[in-house]
Amino acid sequence: MHKSTAEIGFVETTVNVRYAETDQMGIVYYANYLVWFEVGRVAWCKAKGFHYAEMESTDKRYLMVAEASCRYKAPAQFEDDIIVKTGLSKATDRTIHYRYEILKKSTGQLLATGETTHVIVDLNFRPARLPDHYRKYFSLPPRRAANYE
Amino acid sequence: MHKSTAEIGFVETTVNVRYAETDQMGIVYYANYLVWFEVGRVAWCKAKGFHYAEMESTDKRYLMVAEASCRYKAPAQFEDDIIVKTGLSKATDRTIHYRYEILKKSTGQLLATGETTHVIVDLNFRPARLPDHYRKYFSLPPRRAANYE
Amino acid sequence: MHKSTAEIGFVETTVNVRYAETDQMGIVYYANYLVWFEVGRVAWCKAKGFHYAEMESTDKRYLMVAEASCRYKAPAQFEDDIIVKTGLSKATDRTIHYRYEILKKSTGQLLATGETTHVIVDLNFRPARLPDHYRKYFSLPPRRAANYE
Amino acid sequence: MHKSTAEIGFVETTVNVRYAETDQMGIVYYANYLVWFEVGRVAWCKAKGFHYAEMESTDKRYLMVAEASCRYKAPAQFEDDIIVKTGLSKATDRTIHYRYEILKKSTGQLLATGETTHVIVDLNFRPARLPDHYRKYFSLPPRRAANYE
Repeated sequence: MHKSTAEIGFVETTVNVRYAETDQMGIVYYANYLVWFEVGRVAWCKAKGFHYAEMESTDKRYLMVAEASCRYKAPAQFEDDIIVKTGLSKATDRTIHYRYEILKKSTGQLLATGETTHVIVDLNFRPARLPDHYRKYFSLPPRRAANYE
Repeated sequence: MHKSTAEIGFVETTVNVRYAETDQMGIVYYANYLVWFEVGRVAWCKAKGFHYAEMESTDKRYLMVAEASCRYKAPAQFEDDIIVKTGLSKATDRTIHYRYEILKKSTGQLLATGETTHVIVDLNFRPARLPDHYRKYFSLPPRRAANYE
Repeated sequence: MHKSTAEIGFVETTVNVRYAETDQMGIVYYANYLVWFEVGRVAWCKAKGFHYAEMESTDKRYLMVAEASCRYKAPAQFEDDIIVKTGLSKATDRTIHYRYEILKKSTGQLLATGETTHVIVDLNFRPARLPDHYRKYFSLPPRRAANYE
Repeated sequence: MHKSTAEIGFVETTVNVRYAETDQMGIVYYANYLVWFEVGRVAWCKAKGFHYAEMESTDKRYLMVAEASCRYKAPAQFEDDIIVKTGLSKATDRTIHYRYEILKKSTGQLLATGETTHVIVDLNFRPARLPDHYRKYFSLPPRRAANYE
């Protein structure tokens, strides 16, 4: 199983804070950062050259979340433009690790950081392998023809 | 196609307002009432004797929402116990209409009323017929054997 | 109380369907269209020249939802680009009515239409008047100096 | 600053999985576990003898989330009854740490575990101290009169 720990660089996307995302403290409810991480992952996939929706619909492979964490440093508020930076921190053909930085666009202030770990599964939630033609997107070398595992 | 417009009575269930459901006005965000309507429908199905989850998983029939509306009369707030009353207002073997009343449990105050209309569809979102063994739950008479349509 | 029923035209904004917005039918959960309506209203305000966040934070006036409805014509799916069209259908200095069209960007297909009605309230959810300097945004004529009400 | 690291035991509450909480994988979307953690915290407060809503409305103190993490072991599905177990893992008058276990009620299967860290803040999101009359709920000893800090 090949590994890549190389920093592949962050992909950036922007979300505007929705009223629905705020809570009665007047700031974004904490679970919504995990939704923004997902928005970040989808943007990351597009930036790398594929659509995550197609990995599911065509290849029947799913990046099921195994772990997620977030550290909240400063609150985000309604109508703030938020930059979601998403980077691949590690990938094998079984497991994908992402990390995130959430920033306030107007000031550049870091609002939160986070990580998610995903296992590749099939339609029945059983561990599976990343389809070969996706390896390049995750900086994994081509599988050798002799690799019969 | 048989119809029933009879009032079948309201089924009641209770939800406690989650912090996640509030917004920065300090009240429940308006879209969440539609989530409560769904909680009400699931409770209605259980009260009638079946699980909606099984209609989907076993019979491959789905109550797709065609229309939804809500009138908001007074706000709901964090930690309020909320009564969701769900009634069938009309049913055919193609279309189901529900109506809802949302009340504050501690005072009995009416907070909102609403309606949803659902069309029965198959896995491909094509119009379908309510499976025969569900007809009784919706107060529809048994289909005659001679009804070959 | 002045009224405007003039069609002011639709303001368009785009959202990309989030995984979080889908449900197990594989389509966008019906309550999320009301969140998109809110995204549309915020875009409408910006297009007219003000930020809704400022009406709340500076003027302490809130557009509380009194009614909402949606008709669902075709499903939206993960990663679809969705056009949210928002138009003012009627405004007084007490009540604002919006209407919406939700379209699939790639095909132009109409996925849903909707309406919301809002009452202007103060911090204590009591009916209030639209601040005078917002009247122009809602196509309301200036109030006459002699209007002491 | 007094500390308590004593295990105070888990408080249990139950949620029934809502359709709104599922995603197109047919399982509960990962961010919703953090919502369940919040439901667990509210239940924990009630079990200890106070309402979190009152700490906010009466004492103007907020348990702002500083960190959250979750490990997902098995998926939760629509209509599953879910047990949310919430325990205090550590408390000072500045910082509160909770941990959680999420189980499937019908089988007892552990679906997820998690932790959250909260800092006590005032209305302006500035660090504050836990109000004295809440200390007992968090197993903190009474503050000495001579403690002028």
